[in-house]
Amino acid sequence: MNRIHRSKRSWTTRRDAKAKRMAKLERVVNGKIIPTDKIVEALEAVIAPGDRVVLEGNNQKQASFLSKALSKVNPEKVNGLHMIMSSVSRPEHLDIFEKGIARKIDFSYAGPQSLRMSQMLEDGKLIIGEIHTYLELYGRLFIDLTPSVALVAADKADRSGNLYTGPNTEETPTLVEATAFRDGIVIAQVNELADELPRVDIPGSWIDFIVIADQPYELEPLFTRDPRLITEIQILMAMMTIRGIYERHNIQSLNHGIGFNTAAIELLLPTYGESLGLKGKICRHWALNPHPTLIPAIETGWVESIHCFGGEVGMEKYIAARPDVFFTGKDGSLRSNRALSQVAGQYAVDLFIGSTLQMDRDGNSSTVTIGRLAGFGGAPNMGHDPRGRRHSTPAWLDMITSDHPIAKGKKLVVQIVETFQKGNRPVFVESLDAIEVGKKANLATAPIMIYGDDVTHVVTEEGIAYLYKANSLEERRQAIAAIAGVTPIGLEHDPKRTEQLRRDGLVAFPEDLGIRRTDAKRSLLAAKSIEELVEWSEGLYEPPARFRSW
Amino acid sequence: MNRIHRSKRSWTTRRDAKAKRMAKLERVVNGKIIPTDKIVEALEAVIAPGDRVVLEGNNQKQASFLSKALSKVNPEKVNGLHMIMSSVSRPEHLDIFEKGIARKIDFSYAGPQSLRMSQMLEDGKLIIGEIHTYLELYGRLFIDLTPSVALVAADKADRSGNLYTGPNTEETPTLVEATAFRDGIVIAQVNELADELPRVDIPGSWIDFIVIADQPYELEPLFTRDPRLITEIQILMAMMTIRGIYERHNIQSLNHGIGFNTAAIELLLPTYGESLGLKGKICRHWALNPHPTLIPAIETGWVESIHCFGGEVGMEKYIAARPDVFFTGKDGSLRSNRALSQVAGQYAVDLFIGSTLQMDRDGNSSTVTIGRLAGFGGAPNMGHDPRGRRHSTPAWLDMITSDHPIAKGKKLVVQIVETFQKGNRPVFVESLDAIEVGKKANLATAPIMIYGDDVTHVVTEEGIAYLYKANSLEERRQAIAAIAGVTPIGLEHDPKRTEQLRRDGLVAFPEDLGIRRTDAKRSLLAAKSIEELVEWSEGLYEPPARFRSW
Repeated sequence: MNRIHRSKRSWTTRRDAKAKRMAKLERVVNGKIIPTDKIVEALEAVIAPGDRVVLEGNNQKQASFLSKALSKVNPEKVNGLHMIMSSVSRPEHLDIFEKGIARKIDFSYAGPQSLRMSQMLEDGKLIIGEIHTYLELYGRLFIDLTPSVALVAADKADRSGNLYTGPNTEETPTLVEATAFRDGIVIAQVNELADELPRVDIPGSWIDFIVIADQPYELEPLFTRDPRLITEIQILMAMMTIRGIYERHNIQSLNHGIGFNTAAIELLLPTYGESLGLKGKICRHWALNPHPTLIPAIETGWVESIHCFGGEVGMEKYIAARPDVFFTGKDGSLRSNRALSQVAGQYAVDLFIGSTLQMDRDGNSSTVTIGRLAGFGGAPNMGHDPRGRRHSTPAWLDMITSDHPIAKGKKLVVQIVETFQKGNRPVFVESLDAIEVGKKANLATAPIMIYGDDVTHVVTEEGIAYLYKANSLEERRQAIAAIAGVTPIGLEHDPKRTEQLRRDGLVAFPEDLGIRRTDAKRSLLAAKSIEELVEWSEGLYEPPARFRSW
Repeated sequence: MNRIHRSKRSWTTRRDAKAKRMAKLERVVNGKIIPTDKIVEALEAVIAPGDRVVLEGNNQKQASFLSKALSKVNPEKVNGLHMIMSSVSRPEHLDIFEKGIARKIDFSYAGPQSLRMSQMLEDGKLIIGEIHTYLELYGRLFIDLTPSVALVAADKADRSGNLYTGPNTEETPTLVEATAFRDGIVIAQVNELADELPRVDIPGSWIDFIVIADQPYELEPLFTRDPRLITEIQILMAMMTIRGIYERHNIQSLNHGIGFNTAAIELLLPTYGESLGLKGKICRHWALNPHPTLIPAIETGWVESIHCFGGEVGMEKYIAARPDVFFTGKDGSLRSNRALSQVAGQYAVDLFIGSTLQMDRDGNSSTVTIGRLAGFGGAPNMGHDPRGRRHSTPAWLDMITSDHPIAKGKKLVVQIVETFQKGNRPVFVESLDAIEVGKKANLATAPIMIYGDDVTHVVTEEGIAYLYKANSLEERRQAIAAIAGVTPIGLEHDPKRTEQLRRDGLVAFPEDLGIRRTDAKRSLLAAKSIEELVEWSEGLYEPPARFRSW
C-alpha cells in the first residue's frame, strides 16, 4: 500500500465553499429569508464566476423572479456561468448570455427562444453544451452536471424553508435534491410566506434561502387547446387512430402530448369511441398534463388515472374535485412530478403519440428546422422503445412479429402528422433540416427527435402506416410513402405496391378501417369550444382569460 | 353535449375508503403512532382483501418489522393481496403467499428466495404478475399499479411523521409518493422516535402512521466484496477491461454492480490504472452503491463524484468524511435515491458493466437458470442503450461505426464473465435456461436480462469481443465464439476467422492489449483484504463482523 500515492487534499471543499458564500449573505438575510429588494445583491454574493447554475424553467413553470434578478447582476462580479435549464423560454434567459453573465448552456427545450438562440450561437454569444430530453438532463445532475446553485420556484414557504409547490411541483424536487445534497446552494422564490403550509412538497432542510417574489412565478397554459380550432382533417386522423391503433392494439395506458391532433382524440373518446363500445376497454391510464380537452372523457368515465408532469392553468379546482382520477395531496391539490412522470411515460405506458415538423423517408423525425434549434423536451424519452422494459401488456406483445424464442414486445410510438404544414411546407422531406442545423451548430450528432426505427405507426390524413410490420428498411419506406400524400416522399410511392401493403396490413386507408371520410365532422367532438369544456366540468374548470370568448 | 352519458359517480371513492380505514384505527393509535404491539391489529384494520400493497424491500433494505407483522395477520380478515415488491428477500415474503394473505406479486428481484418462489409458482401458491427492472416497477406505481397501502422503513421519525432515512433513502420516497398522493395509506416502521430529526428525507404530510419497530430494519451488506477472494483470472479480466475498454473509449462516467470482477477493477485503478497514466482521465463520475473496494481509488484521487442507489453497511462514517465525493445531507450522512440513481445510471453514464450466469451465441444473457426465477433488479435498466439519449460524450460517440448523417452513439454495455461458472458449468450455452423457465412459469416472454444487440463488449479470461463493431449477426457470433474458451459455443470458433477478427479489431487477446497473463497477480490489488480497506479509509470504514478476520 505504501507505494501508492494517497491524495493529500481536503474532502470538504464544496462544503467549505458553501459556508463561505453563505457567510457573505449573513448581513443581508433574516433567517432563511432574503429580502425581495436584496435579491440581486444576494445572487452576487452566492454565485461565483464559472459556477454551474440550474435555473428552473420548463415548458410551463418559470422561476421568473429569479431569472430576472440573475439578468441584473453585475457581469464583473458574476460571469461565465454554465447554465442548466430544462427550457429556454424567457427573454432574460438569453439576456444573461448577451451580458456575459453566462457562457454555456445545457438544456432540453428552447421553443419560444429558438430563433434568437440560433442567432446568438452563430454570433458566438453562447456555447451549447448538449441538448437533452428532460429525464436525461435530470440524470446528469447526479453525475457530471451537479449544480453549485439552484434557483427554483414554489407557491409558498414557511420560515423554516419548507416549500409548498401546489399543483406545479414539476421538476422542483429533482433540481433541489441534486443541488442540496452536494453542498450546493438552493434559493427558492415563493409567491407567499405562510405560517402553516397546506402540505410540504420539499422539506425545509433542503432549502437554504427563500425570497418572496414581487409577482407570482410565470405559468404558461401550454396544454390548453381550444376545440374551436380543431379541423375535420384532425378529426379524421383521430378517428383512424382510435380505430386503427388504440382499439386494434388494445391500448390501456398512454401519453398524449401537446397539440390539436391528440386533443381531437381526447374529444372523440366519449362520442366516436363510445359508439365503438370501447369505454372501459382502452385508454384507462394516462401520463399527461391535465389537458382541459380530456374533461369530457373523464366525466363520461373513460379515465381511471392520470399522473401529471405538471399542472395546467385553470384546472386546479376541477382536479381537486376529481381525486379518484388525479394524484392529489392531503390539501386536495394536484401533486405533479416531472421526473417520475417521465419515468412512467417511458417505461410504464403502452403508447406514446406525438407530432413533428419534418419526417424523412425512413421515418426519422425532428422539430428542428432551419434557423431554429428547439430541442425536444420529453419526446425522445417517451418516443422510443425502452429496451430495459421487461413487463408485458397486450399492446406491447402485439408488436411482436417474429417467432424467435426470445422475441419481445415493443412500445407503440406513433407519429401523427398532416402531410403538409401550414404555409404549404411538406412534412415528408428528402432530408431533415436537422442535419444541416446540427452541422452549423457543431453538434456531434444531428438533432433527431425520434428515430425511424423506434416508430411503430405513422398516421396522416391519407392513412396509417404500420411500420412495426415492415420486414426491411425498403418496406418501411414504401409504407411511409403510401401515406405521405403529394409530398416529395409521397410522390415516390408505387400504387401497385401500396395495394399490396394494404392487403398485407402494412398500410390502412380510412376505408380499410371502416371510416368514411365524410363522417369526420366537428359535430363528433364532445366539446366544440372552451365554453363547453367549462360546462362539462360543472364550472370547475376556469380557463385563462385569453381562452374566454363569452 | 346532452346526448352523451355523463357518469353519475362519486369522485372520492379512494379518499372515502381511506377515511373509513383510518377511522377504524382511531382507538388504536396515539396521533400518528401505532403502538408496536398493535401492529398486526392495525394492519388488519387498514388493509382490505385484494388490496394492492407495496412492501419496501430491495436488495439491501427491508421493512422487516412490517413484513413479519403482515405474515401474522389473520388470513380470514386479510387475504388475496396483490403485492408489489422490488425484491423478494425474506422468508415471510413468501410465507404470506403460503398463508393465503397474498395471492399475486409484481416484483424485480427474487435472488435469495428464487428457488422457493419457483416451487410455489409450480404448486399454484402464487401468481406472478410481471417481472420488472426497478425503474420500470416504480413507473408503474404511477400508472396501473398504484398501491392502496405502502409499508416502508426509515431510521427515525418525529411525532408529525417526518422521516429521516439516513444513508438508506433508497426507494422509500418513491413508494411513498405513489401511495400518499392517490389516497393510499402509508405506514412507516422506524428504528427510533425523535424530537428533532437530523434532516427530513420525507415530509410528515405524506405519512399516515409510524410504528417503532422491535428491532432495526434489516440491511444487507450486499456490496461488500472481500479482496482476499479476488482471483488472478479476475485480475486479468480487470486489466483487460481497464486497458481495452475504459482507456480505449475514454470512459468518464460509469456504473459498477455487485461482483468480484468489478471489485477487481476498482482495486486496480490506483495501481495498474495509475501505471497507465489514467488518473483524472477516466472513471471520474460513478453511479453505484458505496463499494468498500472503491475506497483506495477515492483516496488516491480517482473519483470526483458518486451517486448512490442505496448505502452500504459500515461505510457511513467514511462517506460522511468525504462529502466532496458523495451526495450527503446537512447532517453529514449519505443521501441515496434508488429511482434517481437508476435514471442517472440509465441515461447519464458512459458505461454499464455487469456479469451473468449464461450467455447464448448471439450475446443474449440471463441470470435465470433452471429452477430459479430470480429477476434482474437494475441490470436491464442500465444494461441497454437508452434510445432517448440525445447528449454525446467521447465514449458514446466512439461506438459510431456508420457514416450515415444521422448516426448516433451508443451506451457501452459490457458483460464480463469467466467462460465457466463454478461447478464447471459453461457460461456460453446453446440455449438459455431462461427460455424453458419462462415457458414453465407462463411468462409472456422469456426472462432475458440483457439482449445481445444491446451488448457492446464481452470480456472473458480469453479476451474481449468488440461486438459494437460487428456488421452482422454472423460476425457477432464469431466474435463471441472467439473468446468463449472451451464452452460449447467457444468450440464452434474458426481459428482462421478469429485471426481475421483480431486483425480487424473485433477481438483482442491480452497480448493484443499489451497485457502479459503472467502480470495478473494479486500483488496488483491496491488492497488485498478488508483490513487493508479499513487502513485505506483511515479507520473510517467499519466492516460488519462477518467480514472481519483480525
